[in-house]
Amino acid sequence: MSSAASVLFEKHEAALLAAATACRVRGYFTLFPETPDRHRGGAAAKEAGLAAFRSQLGRSFELDQPGAIDRCGSEISPYTLEPLGIDYPRADADTLFAAARDAMPAWAGATPRERLGVCMEIVDRLYDRIFESAAAVMHTAGQSELMSYAGSGTNALDRGVEALAYAHAAMLDVPPEALWERRFGSTTIRLRKRYQLVPRGVAVCFVCATFPTWNAYPAMLASLATGNPVIVKPHPTAILPMALAVRTCREVLGEAGFSPNLVTLCLDTFDAPIGKVLVKHPQTAIVDFTGSARFGSWVEANAHPALCFSETSGVNTVVVESVDQLEPVIKSLATTLSLFSAQMCTSPQNIYVPRDGIRHAGGRVGADEFGALLAQSIASIAADPKRAAPIMAALQGASTEALIDGMAVQGARRGRVLHASAPYVHPEYPRARTRTPLLLGLDAGARDLYGEERFGPIGFVITTTGRDAALAEAAADAKAGGGITAFLYSTDEAYVDRGIAAYSAAGAQLTCNLTGPMPLNFAAAYSDYHVTGLNPAGNATLTDLAFVASRFRITQSRAPVA
Amino acid sequence: MSSAASVLFEKHEAALLAAATACRVRGYFTLFPETPDRHRGGAAAKEAGLAAFRSQLGRSFELDQPGAIDRCGSEISPYTLEPLGIDYPRADADTLFAAARDAMPAWAGATPRERLGVCMEIVDRLYDRIFESAAAVMHTAGQSELMSYAGSGTNALDRGVEALAYAHAAMLDVPPEALWERRFGSTTIRLRKRYQLVPRGVAVCFVCATFPTWNAYPAMLASLATGNPVIVKPHPTAILPMALAVRTCREVLGEAGFSPNLVTLCLDTFDAPIGKVLVKHPQTAIVDFTGSARFGSWVEANAHPALCFSETSGVNTVVVESVDQLEPVIKSLATTLSLFSAQMCTSPQNIYVPRDGIRHAGGRVGADEFGALLAQSIASIAADPKRAAPIMAALQGASTEALIDGMAVQGARRGRVLHASAPYVHPEYPRARTRTPLLLGLDAGARDLYGEERFGPIGFVITTTGRDAALAEAAADAKAGGGITAFLYSTDEAYVDRGIAAYSAAGAQLTCNLTGPMPLNFAAAYSDYHVTGLNPAGNATLTDLAFVASRFRITQSRAPVA
Repeated sequence: MSSAASVLFEKHEAALLAAATACRVRGYFTLFPETPDRHRGGAAAKEAGLAAFRSQLGRSFELDQPGAIDRCGSEISPYTLEPLGIDYPRADADTLFAAARDAMPAWAGATPRERLGVCMEIVDRLYDRIFESAAAVMHTAGQSELMSYAGSGTNALDRGVEALAYAHAAMLDVPPEALWERRFGSTTIRLRKRYQLVPRGVAVCFVCATFPTWNAYPAMLASLATGNPVIVKPHPTAILPMALAVRTCREVLGEAGFSPNLVTLCLDTFDAPIGKVLVKHPQTAIVDFTGSARFGSWVEANAHPALCFSETSGVNTVVVESVDQLEPVIKSLATTLSLFSAQMCTSPQNIYVPRDGIRHAGGRVGADEFGALLAQSIASIAADPKRAAPIMAALQGASTEALIDGMAVQGARRGRVLHASAPYVHPEYPRARTRTPLLLGLDAGARDLYGEERFGPIGFVITTTGRDAALAEAAADAKAGGGITAFLYSTDEAYVDRGIAAYSAAGAQLTCNLTGPMPLNFAAAYSDYHVTGLNPAGNATLTDLAFVASRFRITQSRAPVA
Repeated sequence: MSSAASVLFEKHEAALLAAATACRVRGYFTLFPETPDRHRGGAAAKEAGLAAFRSQLGRSFELDQPGAIDRCGSEISPYTLEPLGIDYPRADADTLFAAARDAMPAWAGATPRERLGVCMEIVDRLYDRIFESAAAVMHTAGQSELMSYAGSGTNALDRGVEALAYAHAAMLDVPPEALWERRFGSTTIRLRKRYQLVPRGVAVCFVCATFPTWNAYPAMLASLATGNPVIVKPHPTAILPMALAVRTCREVLGEAGFSPNLVTLCLDTFDAPIGKVLVKHPQTAIVDFTGSARFGSWVEANAHPALCFSETSGVNTVVVESVDQLEPVIKSLATTLSLFSAQMCTSPQNIYVPRDGIRHAGGRVGADEFGALLAQSIASIAADPKRAAPIMAALQGASTEALIDGMAVQGARRGRVLHASAPYVHPEYPRARTRTPLLLGLDAGARDLYGEERFGPIGFVITTTGRDAALAEAAADAKAGGGITAFLYSTDEAYVDRGIAAYSAAGAQLTCNLTGPMPLNFAAAYSDYHVTGLNPAGNATLTDLAFVASRFRITQSRAPVA
């Protein structure tokens, strides 16, 4: 037993309990202020973090883990289009698995409180170093500075703590022991029973390129808290955020008296991908996967006998049936379509509008006019680089440009280009890989274009025969293509109720009639359940009991007592 | 909403809450007395139940469910070796799935309380009719009268209620709604969020022949309580217990205002098995499987995208290292090896003894002598049919006799036959298919004989080089072959601790130094976790949160409120 770990639990117990309460109440809660200037380290923390990031550029990343076979790393900043110039140790997978298994017994033997103490300390340490991590996210994923700090920093940490609160609850559900007594005939049998929580084994955590920490932190922490070592497999184009996280995990684990090899980094390259090897490795007991629908569905089908928790594509839909004021709706949609150039799993893509238009307080706006207004609103953001930059940020991958251009050609042939995508000049990073959203106007029936996720700033305004068709088509997209979020605007309560029922059946999380400064697709830790598992968007929810309860198993022993 | 169902919840609320408390405390608890003469219906209930069973023999089973294509049924009583003469409707699977899907929305739309009320009423009704069910179990599975009543009756119902308590807890973890409020810039966003529990879809419950209700009740009730329809697929040789249960479920569901098609019976025959069709059916969302290791491992590997909860083989081991008094240990082992002719997933099979013998208060008994004493104790049970009958009961399947005889030949060649298996004459049913246990003495190294489950009254006394080898080999059997239970006798505390650790790692539930009237392999609802998922014996535990938490999913909607 590690007394250091026990002390850590006491240090963080109040925060963990508050998080657990928040999970039950599901109101607003956070352990970390979202604004960088409220960081507990003040301006010095920001300076130190940015300095640490800058001093890492062009140098080898120090990570003292076993199994290094060579070094790799070819990250390019979406903002500068220059290589980060960082090389990382590429490790032999078998060596990482063996090291993880060696490290496991002591970690498995620790109490849940000890493990939770260490995990909360990891979160705390990650928060200390959030500015460095944010810079790493910005220059690999292409997020804006603010999103890198909030979405990929504080929000991601909160989602991690949320997972810890659930893991705690699931483990608390099993008492350490019981006294059981009953009569058999004339004899009383009295047994002391001891219940032990046993981790599954090595967890492999696949991390996506555009939003690495937000899914990885909950997965890593849920596995760790329940006793499982974690091998982290980042996307080859976005290694640094996870390399930093792994290094911090290893540091805290070591300080608490456990083996740092409970968390390791496993890298691959485009030429030599290792994903399938990791999934099918005989020592893999848990797979957490965030990434493409194509590989994700392979992982889901092939992970057995390992558990699989996945999040893949998001074909997210909007239905605009009727509104009170049109302008705030247009503005919210334009902003959310532009946010991080729609490279979020929650970004809307397909906007359904009835052919006969949208009722609003001032009358009725036709479907075409609606499309034009939305395009105009996007254009007004795009026209002002100082406004565009913090919203649209940069494109993570170079292939997204080609996808946009290809869709523009097809869209022009099959429908109309409502807003053409073009680079905008980022005020601070003039070479940044930027693109304003492509907005296409189509008739329902071009589902081959919009029926799957088109990853990046590509939106469709789809005209349907009527409002019922709009809802039906949108819900069908979510069910078939995998919707994570959905958005509905209607002043007709009965229609809204039908929408709630339709999207619930389709397994997409619905936001109704929201306007204002909150991004429509904002998902709050402790409150918003993320991914339902009822459609192809993934099988795991952040966070419910099912996300944690099977990461450990229960063994027992019993013996007579006097 | 069904007011009938709400009334049912109130009727059973106290019992359900008491069960939930028992699950947390894990002490002794039951809702149903184990002894038939304490049934609330008194002697009349027994008479009526047995009369109902007898009047069913030789007649068509009435089950008003859709999709009947023909009738089937060729059950034979292991006690009389005569056909039961009951034919059942064989249904078209697609029709059952369609009927289940049709029935689902109203059931999914009911509140968890309403569903739990109905499920508890089903349990209550099954208890009312327990004597009929027990007779059905006796004359299909071959259990003794008492085991049919207690193990397959009251204990099975308690395991069902236990599953309901967990399902309740998992559903209660999700609040119906929340108010979420935070500032974005200078604006306060206030959202009302509604969370909805959504069932997975149609559950298919595969039921084994020897202990049908004990696994089926928890699986059926866990699925039903969380909103999923259930298609029950019994073993072709043991249909009646499940046909009765399905009929009762349908009756209670209908009375409560729901579609009876939420629970249906899907039969097949040996000539036209339908198992794989059901597992791969596009509408199958959940598979609960109890049965053979061979088909079970196929189900586990092929159920995706359906969830799979399995219990398959049990290679259960015993290590006898040192004892205080030898005689009670021998007696307990002999009885448990004989109990229901070891046709329980918890029955011991491989008994490891160090070559240099077993220390006891009176000295030391050699491995050979231990085997002889154990054989003698079995023989003394076998020699007295009045004693043998309630313990050994009958063999469920005719193929078990051939398996015993084959193993006897091999055992004689590779080692020694310590106790030869032979029929015993059942005092009430002279034609009963009975066999006393075969006990073979072997050296470690004949793992091809004992390394897998030999289903039926077949035990092995295996001599190892020493006590450490005994523990290592036994735990290895459990890990490789799939151990559910394990038994250890040692007066050496340090050795016991090593045993606890070894079996915990092997994923088998350990009972230490137990003697006396309680069958060693008795597993108590609300207290004993059954199957760990850490070895091939199955992946699901009766009952933990993981058994219930993923049977439903969570959708949400949110909208601004003033």
